[in-house]
Amino acid sequence: MDIATLRKDHAEHWMKACAIRALAMDAVQAANSGHPGMPMGMADVATVLFEKHLKFDASAPKWADRDRFILSAGHGSMLIYALLYLTGYEDMTLDQVKNFRQWGAITAGHPEYGHVAGVETTTGPLGQGISNAVGFAIAEESLRARFGKKVVDHYTWVIAGDGCLMEGISHEAIGLAGMQKLSKLIVLWDNNDISIDGKISMSDVTDQQARFAAAGWKVLSCDGHDPFDIDRAMTAAKGSDRPVLIDCKTHIGFGSPKKQDTAGAHGSPLGPDEIKVTKEIYGWPHAAFDIPTDILKAWRAIGARGQAARADWESRLNALSATRKAEFERQMSGGAPKRLAATIRALKKQNSDLAPKVATRKASEMVLEVVNPVMPETIGGSADLTGSNNTKTGDLGIFNPQNRKGRYVHYGIREHGMAAAMNGMALHGGARPYGGTFLCFTDYARGAMRLSALMGVPSVYVMTHDSIGLGEDGPTHQPVEHLAICRATPNTWTFRPADLIETAEAWELALTAEATPSVLALSRQNLPTVRTKHTGKNLTAQGGYVLREAEGKRRAILMATGSEVEIALKARDLLQAEGIGTRVVSMPCMELFAAQDEAYRKRVLPAGPVRVAVEAAVRQPWDRFLLGERGREAKSAFVGMDSFGASAPAERLYAEFGITAEAVAAKVRSLL
Amino acid sequence: MDIATLRKDHAEHWMKACAIRALAMDAVQAANSGHPGMPMGMADVATVLFEKHLKFDASAPKWADRDRFILSAGHGSMLIYALLYLTGYEDMTLDQVKNFRQWGAITAGHPEYGHVAGVETTTGPLGQGISNAVGFAIAEESLRARFGKKVVDHYTWVIAGDGCLMEGISHEAIGLAGMQKLSKLIVLWDNNDISIDGKISMSDVTDQQARFAAAGWKVLSCDGHDPFDIDRAMTAAKGSDRPVLIDCKTHIGFGSPKKQDTAGAHGSPLGPDEIKVTKEIYGWPHAAFDIPTDILKAWRAIGARGQAARADWESRLNALSATRKAEFERQMSGGAPKRLAATIRALKKQNSDLAPKVATRKASEMVLEVVNPVMPETIGGSADLTGSNNTKTGDLGIFNPQNRKGRYVHYGIREHGMAAAMNGMALHGGARPYGGTFLCFTDYARGAMRLSALMGVPSVYVMTHDSIGLGEDGPTHQPVEHLAICRATPNTWTFRPADLIETAEAWELALTAEATPSVLALSRQNLPTVRTKHTGKNLTAQGGYVLREAEGKRRAILMATGSEVEIALKARDLLQAEGIGTRVVSMPCMELFAAQDEAYRKRVLPAGPVRVAVEAAVRQPWDRFLLGERGREAKSAFVGMDSFGASAPAERLYAEFGITAEAVAAKVRSLL
Repeated sequence: MDIATLRKDHAEHWMKACAIRALAMDAVQAANSGHPGMPMGMADVATVLFEKHLKFDASAPKWADRDRFILSAGHGSMLIYALLYLTGYEDMTLDQVKNFRQWGAITAGHPEYGHVAGVETTTGPLGQGISNAVGFAIAEESLRARFGKKVVDHYTWVIAGDGCLMEGISHEAIGLAGMQKLSKLIVLWDNNDISIDGKISMSDVTDQQARFAAAGWKVLSCDGHDPFDIDRAMTAAKGSDRPVLIDCKTHIGFGSPKKQDTAGAHGSPLGPDEIKVTKEIYGWPHAAFDIPTDILKAWRAIGARGQAARADWESRLNALSATRKAEFERQMSGGAPKRLAATIRALKKQNSDLAPKVATRKASEMVLEVVNPVMPETIGGSADLTGSNNTKTGDLGIFNPQNRKGRYVHYGIREHGMAAAMNGMALHGGARPYGGTFLCFTDYARGAMRLSALMGVPSVYVMTHDSIGLGEDGPTHQPVEHLAICRATPNTWTFRPADLIETAEAWELALTAEATPSVLALSRQNLPTVRTKHTGKNLTAQGGYVLREAEGKRRAILMATGSEVEIALKARDLLQAEGIGTRVVSMPCMELFAAQDEAYRKRVLPAGPVRVAVEAAVRQPWDRFLLGERGREAKSAFVGMDSFGASAPAERLYAEFGITAEAVAAKVRSLL
Repeated sequence: MDIATLRKDHAEHWMKACAIRALAMDAVQAANSGHPGMPMGMADVATVLFEKHLKFDASAPKWADRDRFILSAGHGSMLIYALLYLTGYEDMTLDQVKNFRQWGAITAGHPEYGHVAGVETTTGPLGQGISNAVGFAIAEESLRARFGKKVVDHYTWVIAGDGCLMEGISHEAIGLAGMQKLSKLIVLWDNNDISIDGKISMSDVTDQQARFAAAGWKVLSCDGHDPFDIDRAMTAAKGSDRPVLIDCKTHIGFGSPKKQDTAGAHGSPLGPDEIKVTKEIYGWPHAAFDIPTDILKAWRAIGARGQAARADWESRLNALSATRKAEFERQMSGGAPKRLAATIRALKKQNSDLAPKVATRKASEMVLEVVNPVMPETIGGSADLTGSNNTKTGDLGIFNPQNRKGRYVHYGIREHGMAAAMNGMALHGGARPYGGTFLCFTDYARGAMRLSALMGVPSVYVMTHDSIGLGEDGPTHQPVEHLAICRATPNTWTFRPADLIETAEAWELALTAEATPSVLALSRQNLPTVRTKHTGKNLTAQGGYVLREAEGKRRAILMATGSEVEIALKARDLLQAEGIGTRVVSMPCMELFAAQDEAYRKRVLPAGPVRVAVEAAVRQPWDRFLLGERGREAKSAFVGMDSFGASAPAERLYAEFGITAEAVAAKVRSLL
């Protein structure tokens, strides 16, 4: 539908949509930076969505039963900022819009979760939003199964562009959604045939409709500039028994004489002349950032139209028993259940006595076996390595279209899609997701793992087979740099527990984290219990601690994590037999150790004794504790990996790569 | 087709295929580790491929015009090892097969490029092989356009399983291949409906045939156990005008009574009893590793059947002019053209004089503008950020179905697919690929970047917008941990050049690398030329060097890379004005610096002066040079990032994050 017809036959809609377009053009211009084309292209779709279909209340951004709206094409951030301002979200003032992309404004270049009420997830890196959305939809199904349709019944709407749909992660997301028949997931495809480099056909000929259909989705389409057609499609979408793609045919930079339908509209300010001409074409004779009162009023009414529905919902929520309601609120808030601490403590105590020899991936399973029954919001899974990751416990049940009460997701071979879905679940609320693969394949999930950290989402990554200890699968599977990678990422807890006790402690921290994702690096191979003396205190919370003190004058400190703690303890035995007093420090989480006060860190790592760290991984993160923290170059050494691994049984690999108790002891002697 | 029919009606084929099956079962059993099911499932397809279609000569694994065979389902490594032994590749002795997955054997758990003649690329991490294959096919098209069909005319065959096809990277690969109409790419899908966790339907309902058709592929299918049907499909595939998927319906663990069609056949030894029973069903009454003479002879004949074709090809190659032939061999060998060094030197000299102020992404383009014309084997590209990555130069032309002479690939929004395709191109030979995206989105390409390093493939990653210096796009786009990530990866050169001169030097190293991939981290923002004094020597090859010496007694050393070298030089100005002798070290490549001898490193970083490093990234990789290399904790400091970035203009960000000349100078003063 062309602009002339829109102005004539859909005047009220058109004016509302123009408000979005104008704000987008003006804000990008003021910032001299940003992406006007996408908001200009999708303003009609967004207006119909917010006006007629999206269940929301601008005065209650956290209303648990709101529809979720996700702008996967995050570069079009001015679209959502304009919507939030126009509909009346309190934080989104006109000043914020005017300060788009400036220091201190909530209107960041790409929408950021936690900065802006109404932004459900941080987007920008393409493909993430649509993949988060799968998680939002899973969480909605799961919560509805737990608490009933009267309390949980909402849609997840996504705007995604060609970029998102070309990204590999989108394949994983739509495959998962299709198999799971997530019928309340609706993706609006901004089909404008343009990407940064030019026409889509320069790089892709994919028939997206056929592709989505092949993945088990329902496919609809509409003229993305005809409000009646958009409305019809959205109505039809809501009646689907499977996820829906609505192919919205749009023009990027709609209305701009020079830039419409060109890549030039994508990521640069239009320029004042082009804005002027475009506004004339729109019939929008208003100054920059000026929204006429009647149009703003109409938008504010849209922002308020959900109030009645919300009031009704609150009555239904209050009609639950006090216990049920409290449980709903606890789950939605992310607070841990009361029984968690005691459950962890009991498991620790029992096993300090039993002192089993188990791989930490198995230890993790043992923890989950007692935790999952007391924490009904956990949703576990694995990217097709369930038996290896040990992520499934007896009580969970499989989550699938026949069993929404199931709490175990077979993600398939979709590490990145799994991670992004976990983020979405956690963001939605009511779900504490954890998912597994091999530590080496965090490489595939990196984009989403980074966003967990940036957003402050407590997704839990169960990463097993965490070193050359995995043996014969060889170097393509053996991580060496991955602990360094996770530790280099801000706001991420990288746990590498030595035994079942530390594993339980790590899980406790991971599951009570408010705003930090966790990586649990777990062994394939069996490891002895080293924490044989029970304490109710969570020592892993200190990040690092003295596991065994030196006997006699303390002349050496050994630092280790995970499977190498056993090696450090054996080295200690060798050294103590020679009268060399040796302390062993277990450091299951470097970040938490670094966060302790200096006095504590000094007690654990005093100046004086020589230091040797041993970890079957690269040295990079250890320099801080070998050379720093009162360490010294001449009195420190590292035993670990400085290359990729090899294919052989694990014991042979440890020997060939020189990661042995004898090697550690020899290093100590050479430093004394 | 069932086994009884195969034994009766296709006895010769069946026996040859059984040889593969038997070796796979026996080798996995001997190793007590590995994946027997896939080789047992695909042995019929593989036998027909090698016997009737694959153009190869076992005595000449490096024959430039051989067909390429890629086992994307790398866990099925015994399939290719068996094929290489049976067809007579010299290195693949029976001893090697018997030592599958043992220390020192070439028969690693997953096939490794460089270890085994006949293995075209390292696989194991799912989705990589099929994505490399796209690169192999692009290289073949490109080389054929350069040298003609008489010299370059071969297919790329891939065996891929459900795992590969569920991975997001496969979506990128098949989308790229479909648009590019890579008609000599044939994917054999091991369609056995099983993944590790069980039946595929537990996680996926995708109609793969429809999916591939939607991406522009031709789709065929066959009974994966009927040699006539397989042959028919392969013949039909070779006549296609677009890439081909052959859906081969197979049974994982074919013939094993207990394990066929189960996940149990995938990744565990069958056990001696099951092997015995299966061999009986096969009609294969031979001991472990025993291949009857007549069957081995038949296989060896297959391995030799390409000899005549190769001899003919060599005649055609020799019929080229001496110059053309030499150029062909140079390009295939990966050796740099003679003119490269002089070209780089001339550019350096010119610009030490001109001293332009350009972003290093722009500098990179300037280097490519002079290099691409003298190095006809470069193939550049970008994942839809051509204008931002500055990877396209005037002379390249666009590579697409209408122009195979083009040397620029619009990869689309496919960072991972691009990286894997680059690996494939480089492995194929005759191509020196480079590709761009934003440094932050190396996250998306990690899996393939790691394989570049593991395989020793000199792919060049042009990673622009390398810090908070990119400004308003904000923290989702601003890398902080990515230099640490690249530096933590073994066998990777991470270059962060300060100006056009260092950028030219970095490119020279990247393009002459034999077995090391390079990351070029480049700025979005303009930077001054700091290397104003020309030298023909490549100082970047030393990794780090004294850029400006101290005046007066040397009391401080500043270390910096890229955009922060300018900051370090300004800090030096401030300190020298106070009489504090300050040396500035530029460290464009930490790995190369660490590889210099100790005497050199000592000269650059002597004990004594205080040290401050400045880089708009996390500290982790700097501890080595601040606290080690004769540094001291109490006399060193870091100015950089310890959190994610923010959305604002770049100048504001540098100020707010305290990465300024004043801050660096203040740190020095506090340490003195």
